[in-house]
Amino acid sequence: MTVDHRIAALQRPVRRPLEQVQRRLEGLFKTPIPILNQVGGHVLATRGKKFRPTLLLLTSQLRGTMGPEAITCATVVELVHAAALIHDDSVDRSTLRRGLPTVNGLWTDEMAIIMGDYLYAQSMSLLVENGQLVPMDIMARVVADMACGEAMEFQHAFNLDVKEADYEELIRAKTASLIGASSEIGAGVGGHWKDKARRARFQQFGEKVGVAFQIIDDLFDYLSDSDVTGKPVGHDLAEGKVTLPLIAALRQATEADRKKLRALAGRKRWTKAQWGSLNALIERAGGFHYARERAATLAAESRALLARERAGAARRALDAAIDYAIQRDH
Amino acid sequence: MTVDHRIAALQRPVRRPLEQVQRRLEGLFKTPIPILNQVGGHVLATRGKKFRPTLLLLTSQLRGTMGPEAITCATVVELVHAAALIHDDSVDRSTLRRGLPTVNGLWTDEMAIIMGDYLYAQSMSLLVENGQLVPMDIMARVVADMACGEAMEFQHAFNLDVKEADYEELIRAKTASLIGASSEIGAGVGGHWKDKARRARFQQFGEKVGVAFQIIDDLFDYLSDSDVTGKPVGHDLAEGKVTLPLIAALRQATEADRKKLRALAGRKRWTKAQWGSLNALIERAGGFHYARERAATLAAESRALLARERAGAARRALDAAIDYAIQRDH
Repeated sequence: MTVDHRIAALQRPVRRPLEQVQRRLEGLFKTPIPILNQVGGHVLATRGKKFRPTLLLLTSQLRGTMGPEAITCATVVELVHAAALIHDDSVDRSTLRRGLPTVNGLWTDEMAIIMGDYLYAQSMSLLVENGQLVPMDIMARVVADMACGEAMEFQHAFNLDVKEADYEELIRAKTASLIGASSEIGAGVGGHWKDKARRARFQQFGEKVGVAFQIIDDLFDYLSDSDVTGKPVGHDLAEGKVTLPLIAALRQATEADRKKLRALAGRKRWTKAQWGSLNALIERAGGFHYARERAATLAAESRALLARERAGAARRALDAAIDYAIQRDH
Repeated sequence: MTVDHRIAALQRPVRRPLEQVQRRLEGLFKTPIPILNQVGGHVLATRGKKFRPTLLLLTSQLRGTMGPEAITCATVVELVHAAALIHDDSVDRSTLRRGLPTVNGLWTDEMAIIMGDYLYAQSMSLLVENGQLVPMDIMARVVADMACGEAMEFQHAFNLDVKEADYEELIRAKTASLIGASSEIGAGVGGHWKDKARRARFQQFGEKVGVAFQIIDDLFDYLSDSDVTGKPVGHDLAEGKVTLPLIAALRQATEADRKKLRALAGRKRWTKAQWGSLNALIERAGGFHYARERAATLAAESRALLARERAGAARRALDAAIDYAIQRDH
């Protein structure tokens, strides 16, 4: 199955509420400011798979809940995700995302800052208007976490001595915290906020899925064909992002290989041959294998957290979401 | 009196709570991420006069209220202001603000985006933690307003046909909405949220002060000596910001002068002589006079809104705050 088919399959149990989310998003770009609607239209048109709202809605569905509260919260997590991506593309100077132009690529970094701020503000407004206190608390923490994750990335840029634990905390904060919030909120909507143990379990579930997702994403920066991801291979490392395959390889390589690896990894541009050597050294030291294994372990741990949940379409889809996170073919 | 003396004088009735605000701000930069604390330290060190917290606290003081709620909210409005300035400096590519380096100037635009997002998130967290529902509602609206103001600036950039009403709505959204929120929240803290008429009056008060403040700020972009403001004269117009003196002059000038004005204003760089001619044309068409008069009218209207309030130190200071907004000597 292609990526698009796989996401469509796991979204089947929540297709209608996802359509409602989409309509709520579209409603945000009917402002009196043409440029805002224009950029917003582009954001919506290029917005992807709605993985986070899907997780939220599926988790909610486990208990058969699907009220307006779930729709509002699912809209909010997608808004925050879109805002973060737009700011992140600007931070990273990316002009393409999945082969499509970014806001900063099509307009300017300025417009990216403005649009991100607007989306953050709208997400806050949606929660306030609907009196969603616990989600507000969760989302305030997550938005701070995401900014801290970005700051850690800045802090650790080009640092070949970064520790695996620091890398994992970085991607937890930057990427997984919002995915954890999505499933935590999904566990709480419909009057279940007080079931804190289950909420915590679903936060764990989402964070593990999110960390696994990011490990695989980072892995594909080494392995994939740039024609598929729409960004140049080695882009992350050129930007100073030292990710798990390299961290593991530097730790596990022979002394001689480690020296070669450090020299190659310290560059910011590579010839095709140099990039090939770098990849071969990571492969030989078991860096790619280690990253895949770590993602698989996290996936298994997240799957175990679903064990107590009622069997059915929603749980099967959540299981499929774990696979989706770690088996993307791009 | 110098600017610093004038602000110190009007802050006297709320000096202690302002110190508490400062300590709350400092507490936000004790994170485990060195770069965040470092940039945060710079932000605090260069943070200025705390005009918005001052308005909030003085308004609260009118009814003798000065509880922890007021301190929290005053911290929040300063955080949102700082976040907006940091993003705004990055949007405007300003490397100096009041003669001091900006975050994007000293670090990068990337760091400016991250720090702004972090401060927005922290402001939201403070309100959520303290269960401040009405301020949350007000602030969510204001943050969206501020982003819309920035988008309008983008929309109207280099448009010499922009209408005065559009300009005023732009600066209301971008600058005055937060000042309005500060005094509205000041009117609400201490158990007065339900007094909606008075809250609305103070929102009006703050917005009028804020629009007047921005009109004068924009005026000084033409008139002041760049050694004093720390930014080059004509910077706004070079950035495409068409402000009230020019809008009024283009409307009021003779046909011949209007043609000359449009030609000069359409440039992005000026020789000293060209800039002198532009200023002389605006002066002759009454553009500077018009802007000053408009600010004075708004100041008088805001003063009138204080008429029903109890006389005393707080009200005298609020009166002085109006003067401060429109009589800055830089």
